[in-house]
Amino acid sequence: MTIELEHGYVKRIVPEWKPMTGSEKKPELYLYNSLTRHKELFKPVTGNQVKFYICGPTVYDSTHLGHARTFLSLDIVRRVLTNYFNYDVLFVMNMTDIDDKIIKRARQNYLFDHYVAKTCKNFNQIAKDLSSALILFKEQYEAETEMDKKQMLDKMIVKTNEVVKSVEKELQAKKGATSDDHIGLLLNSARDILSEWLDANLGKTVSDHAIFDKLAKKYENEFHHDMSSLYVLPPHVLTRVSEYVPEIVAYVERIIKHGYAYKTSDGSIYFDTVSFESNPKHFYAKLVPEAYGDTENAHKHLKESEGELSMGTDRLQEKKNPSDFALWKSSKEGEPFWDSPWGKGRPGWHIECSAMNSAVLGEKLDIHGGGYDLKFPHHDNEIALCEAYLDNENWVNYFLHAGTLKIAGLKMSKSLKNFITIRQALETYTARQLRILFLMHTWSEILDYSDQAMEQALQFEKFCNEFFLTVKNYLRRAQSQCSDEASSYQKFEAEELQRLEKFLSIKQEIHAALCDSVDTRTVIEKLREMVKMGNEYIRDKEKQNVIPNCNFLRNLAEYVTSILKVFGTIPESSQIGFPTETSESIDNKEELVMPYFNALAEFREAIRNLAIEAKNNNILAECDRLRDEILPELGVRLEDRKNQTCVKLVDRETLRREQEQKKAFEAAKQAEKLHLQKEREEKEAAKEAAKRIPPEEIFRQPNEAEKYLKFDEKGIPTHTADGEEISKKQRKKLEAAWEKQQKLYEQTMKNGYAGMNGHSKQNGTMNGH
Amino acid sequence: MTIELEHGYVKRIVPEWKPMTGSEKKPELYLYNSLTRHKELFKPVTGNQVKFYICGPTVYDSTHLGHARTFLSLDIVRRVLTNYFNYDVLFVMNMTDIDDKIIKRARQNYLFDHYVAKTCKNFNQIAKDLSSALILFKEQYEAETEMDKKQMLDKMIVKTNEVVKSVEKELQAKKGATSDDHIGLLLNSARDILSEWLDANLGKTVSDHAIFDKLAKKYENEFHHDMSSLYVLPPHVLTRVSEYVPEIVAYVERIIKHGYAYKTSDGSIYFDTVSFESNPKHFYAKLVPEAYGDTENAHKHLKESEGELSMGTDRLQEKKNPSDFALWKSSKEGEPFWDSPWGKGRPGWHIECSAMNSAVLGEKLDIHGGGYDLKFPHHDNEIALCEAYLDNENWVNYFLHAGTLKIAGLKMSKSLKNFITIRQALETYTARQLRILFLMHTWSEILDYSDQAMEQALQFEKFCNEFFLTVKNYLRRAQSQCSDEASSYQKFEAEELQRLEKFLSIKQEIHAALCDSVDTRTVIEKLREMVKMGNEYIRDKEKQNVIPNCNFLRNLAEYVTSILKVFGTIPESSQIGFPTETSESIDNKEELVMPYFNALAEFREAIRNLAIEAKNNNILAECDRLRDEILPELGVRLEDRKNQTCVKLVDRETLRREQEQKKAFEAAKQAEKLHLQKEREEKEAAKEAAKRIPPEEIFRQPNEAEKYLKFDEKGIPTHTADGEEISKKQRKKLEAAWEKQQKLYEQTMKNGYAGMNGHSKQNGTMNGH
Repeated sequence: MTIELEHGYVKRIVPEWKPMTGSEKKPELYLYNSLTRHKELFKPVTGNQVKFYICGPTVYDSTHLGHARTFLSLDIVRRVLTNYFNYDVLFVMNMTDIDDKIIKRARQNYLFDHYVAKTCKNFNQIAKDLSSALILFKEQYEAETEMDKKQMLDKMIVKTNEVVKSVEKELQAKKGATSDDHIGLLLNSARDILSEWLDANLGKTVSDHAIFDKLAKKYENEFHHDMSSLYVLPPHVLTRVSEYVPEIVAYVERIIKHGYAYKTSDGSIYFDTVSFESNPKHFYAKLVPEAYGDTENAHKHLKESEGELSMGTDRLQEKKNPSDFALWKSSKEGEPFWDSPWGKGRPGWHIECSAMNSAVLGEKLDIHGGGYDLKFPHHDNEIALCEAYLDNENWVNYFLHAGTLKIAGLKMSKSLKNFITIRQALETYTARQLRILFLMHTWSEILDYSDQAMEQALQFEKFCNEFFLTVKNYLRRAQSQCSDEASSYQKFEAEELQRLEKFLSIKQEIHAALCDSVDTRTVIEKLREMVKMGNEYIRDKEKQNVIPNCNFLRNLAEYVTSILKVFGTIPESSQIGFPTETSESIDNKEELVMPYFNALAEFREAIRNLAIEAKNNNILAECDRLRDEILPELGVRLEDRKNQTCVKLVDRETLRREQEQKKAFEAAKQAEKLHLQKEREEKEAAKEAAKRIPPEEIFRQPNEAEKYLKFDEKGIPTHTADGEEISKKQRKKLEAAWEKQQKLYEQTMKNGYAGMNGHSKQNGTMNGH
Repeated sequence: MTIELEHGYVKRIVPEWKPMTGSEKKPELYLYNSLTRHKELFKPVTGNQVKFYICGPTVYDSTHLGHARTFLSLDIVRRVLTNYFNYDVLFVMNMTDIDDKIIKRARQNYLFDHYVAKTCKNFNQIAKDLSSALILFKEQYEAETEMDKKQMLDKMIVKTNEVVKSVEKELQAKKGATSDDHIGLLLNSARDILSEWLDANLGKTVSDHAIFDKLAKKYENEFHHDMSSLYVLPPHVLTRVSEYVPEIVAYVERIIKHGYAYKTSDGSIYFDTVSFESNPKHFYAKLVPEAYGDTENAHKHLKESEGELSMGTDRLQEKKNPSDFALWKSSKEGEPFWDSPWGKGRPGWHIECSAMNSAVLGEKLDIHGGGYDLKFPHHDNEIALCEAYLDNENWVNYFLHAGTLKIAGLKMSKSLKNFITIRQALETYTARQLRILFLMHTWSEILDYSDQAMEQALQFEKFCNEFFLTVKNYLRRAQSQCSDEASSYQKFEAEELQRLEKFLSIKQEIHAALCDSVDTRTVIEKLREMVKMGNEYIRDKEKQNVIPNCNFLRNLAEYVTSILKVFGTIPESSQIGFPTETSESIDNKEELVMPYFNALAEFREAIRNLAIEAKNNNILAECDRLRDEILPELGVRLEDRKNQTCVKLVDRETLRREQEQKKAFEAAKQAEKLHLQKEREEKEAAKEAAKRIPPEEIFRQPNEAEKYLKFDEKGIPTHTADGEEISKKQRKKLEAAWEKQQKLYEQTMKNGYAGMNGHSKQNGTMNGH
């Protein structure tokens, strides 16, 4: 600490630094790794950069909550890695837009639509076709080995048969006449069965690539839309199989060169699992080793792996080993194709992911994510392919599998038809509520979806929200009560210091939970504990009739908010760059946008006048299009008036409502008209009916009959209801009425018979005796 | 990898996990630690919790940029620790609201106001008092040893004397009548001098505590306001000395008990530095060891340490050692006081921080921050007190000192009166621009404030902003042009992949820079590099007439935004809890107005293309007018690019500033041009003048004449300055020069006379003999 210099002068220098250390080890992030089936210390290959690849959807149908389990849960993991642990995550997702399921669905939709257009009126034809279709479908039912699925197929058959019977019954009752409703009902319930049959017979005839592309694009868009509704962050890079065929072909070529793949006579390429496994540096099926050689489930895995269109015995018999799988599939008629050195074909499923993530992320992957059900064969095959391509021992360090989502004990899936689409779920719950449910079930766990489970998520949301509102109320009050900022900083007394200590320790527990493989379930519990403590503090202070320490409350609420932000339950601005002006000034949309509209209207007016002068019709048409098409969509009405353009800003909602009201008004007018007409017609009909009452019956009509006790042979009353004889005066009146009716009746019946040959035939028949 | 079970059945198990590793070590955070004068690996005592204490202001005056250097720079460090490295930072700041400076300033203000009220009209009285005051003030001037400060005091005296003279002159002219203006001017410029004198005479009479409190509260509020104007985050806990007196007294008692402090006869307590130093587990002045025993600066340090009111010899003569300092100061008349076991008094400066941070943060502190100039004596004393209190070896692990802010080479400070207040600075520049300047000078460096330095900050802001606007334009276009979300994901071709690689590597460099003691200067440079790459990419694509990959642009812009957010240059929502619907929908002006702009830009583009086709110049002129005149007024910039129109939303303030800057730049260019022209003219004039020197005079010109002693009749030198005769060779040269000048002279005079009648008359006159 002192150095003796020459001449005896002593110079003091900084003393040795002995930093204090804590007792416990600083927690580090561990992730549950499917490759080891343990939680492993997370270390990226390069610095704090994390290359993260995730298997995206096969886009042939709507996204349901089962998909959300994967994409939302891994979104939470991604957000925690990025926003909490500050890793520089590069997130890549693929989009499987070439696949047997897409091909089949697109062909079926196409063929079914044509079929409907061709045969919609003909019940007999449909019934005949359906019985052929059911024969085929029953074969599929017999072949199905999975119990859940078999039950589902059975239900479909039963349901369809029921509908057929009910339609037949209806037809018999109506003597062969069918209504469009009945046919619609039938086609709807038999759609899957008929489509299968149509595809089996006519699938080969579908050859336009656009049919497949359109379906894939439609569901890809739905997927993006659903994901953004759930606040799932978009990937940094998205790879579509259809855009990577050349890369895939090159990838396959190198695997062949390394001796791990072979060609079959139809121009398909298969991966040689045995050759791969026999090389000591490789190991086939790292994730599910027990699946290799598992003959019991081999067929199921094969079908899943190869795709329904690629299971023909002609194809499979040339495989060297039962566990080999296709890298490149030759395309038959009715299947889209791309050129390759082996002829026209398309990529196999597993090779897509290997080739695409290698194209973007290179040779070392930090994390691969996906659904639990993709472990085998998909991910194991993907791993094998990458290692075969690189011919090395390892290509990915961490494999994360999101747990499954169950509903009533069954896995939610399209093939079981027990799914709730994301759109349906979002009709009942908000994206935030769904996300809280997912947070309550750590990403790697099973999530059993039910209303009870949702109820818990809703309770947690409300619990936090009430706390936030209470704190905000105190902060607002503090602000309004004390004019100076200084007063909002109160001293931390023993009471606050003690709770501050607790606050700090819960934060450390939350940190530890996130380090423990992103254990969000525990984090939610700890947040609840923290909010509970905050509520208790507020209650204590209220009892003491003292304003709580606002800074402490703010610290608590800001921390809870920050963690909920990390998880994506509170949106963060995704705006790029510097904000333009303070957001506070925007409370009047009209005031804000009107100056811009005026500029637009004036510009258009100037252009329009010049164009009229120059007789340039193209420009005038453009001016009209702006007024008639573009601006109404934006809720703006331009009116070209004599001296100037008039701009009217109407928000879309108002425009929509206005139109609805207009429609409703017109409908009401129409209904009133119909009502009056009906009334008129009813009156007319009653009058007409009255004419058709024989004179003997007129005093026996309801309302009349109850007035009298006895009648004579002509049906004229003789005694009133209370037993008195009818007076002569009365008798005369009654006889006069009788005679009037007789004349009316005779004339009517004469006309009536004549009418039977005319337009009132049906009426006549229905009312006659 | 396989286990042989009983009965010869072989079970496959997961193979050994061999994770890939990178070549380099993962960078970890190092902080420049004043305790070691090196960058040290940062390790918090407990988990990821960081207890961070910072010395707040002494609230007796307005906050200036010198303070901002400390609070803004350490705010950046705090934000990086919290938002980038995800430490759970507990940030505590004190507020020194009991201090000799506050007492003196409050008394002076109070006394001066009274004096003004009493004597404002009486010039003679004021002049008389001022001359007494100047005598006192000059004594202070004589005693001052610091040169910078001495100069400043001198200027004050000179200035005041000038004002007195001018007022006297004015009075004479007006025959004794004085105007309020003159008296006001005089009082204003003599305020400090008079106040010192008033305080010396009457300070003792001020006894109301409220007078001191009011001043402290006023400047505390100003401080909070200024900090929030600069987006400096508020502390989690704020401690005021006035609220911690009991804790401070207890703290002192324990130090006395430990034998490191003693009482003097007036009831003050002093820290015994020698007793402390002599204990082998302690070391006094860890930060600046060389200051202990530095007799040269002892007085300066003592004054700083003890406060101006506590320097009386009566007080100091009882100290055991010169380096001892007060823990508790007995209060004299005119000083606020609190009760203590030693009588009425108030805390010393250094003990405050020790006692308060120990009260809130306990016995182990991770980081202590403060201004560079507080190292010694304040921080060294604070350390010594904590160690004396705990009687241990160590209490804080990292001491961070923000570098000083200089202006024109001098430290900006109140005592030098060369400061720019934060409010003044914010009139010229935005908080963001100031923050960028600070980011460009890493927190521990010296920052030399100047308009040139600010210019660089403005340039960087503009450079980023242009990039953001361009990217946003492309993203909006992509969104409006393709109806489906899928189309916004384009394939990453070789060009994008190569740049993605570069993007990833710059991000790692930024990470490394932040690990390197939060080296924001390097980060800013790297961000510039990244934006440059993005601009180049866009230019390349525009050249190829291809729309750039929007996802890649978004990735770049989002990353740059995120880092600027970490630094606090882009505000993040500080809203607590779940957003309400209204705040979600209205907080983004851009989102609100952009659809309308797109409609406008697309309409204009369509019109412009049609007008180019039709060669209609009137319409084209109208299109230009919209771009150049109408829209800039509304804060919108349209840029006609090759493939499409680029819309940039810029707030009016920015556009205004841009125009001003453009004007200033042009003015500077013009000034430079004028300067060069003037130089050229002066050279020309000198050349012209040289021609007009008669040959006899040329060796007698300045610079020439001093080389020689004697000349002949023609004016040609015969002897050099040191008396030697000119050699023949030299003589020849001189004669040649003489003849050359003669020719030149004759010709010039001929032209000159001719010129006298023409436009160069004036020139001729001025130069002619």
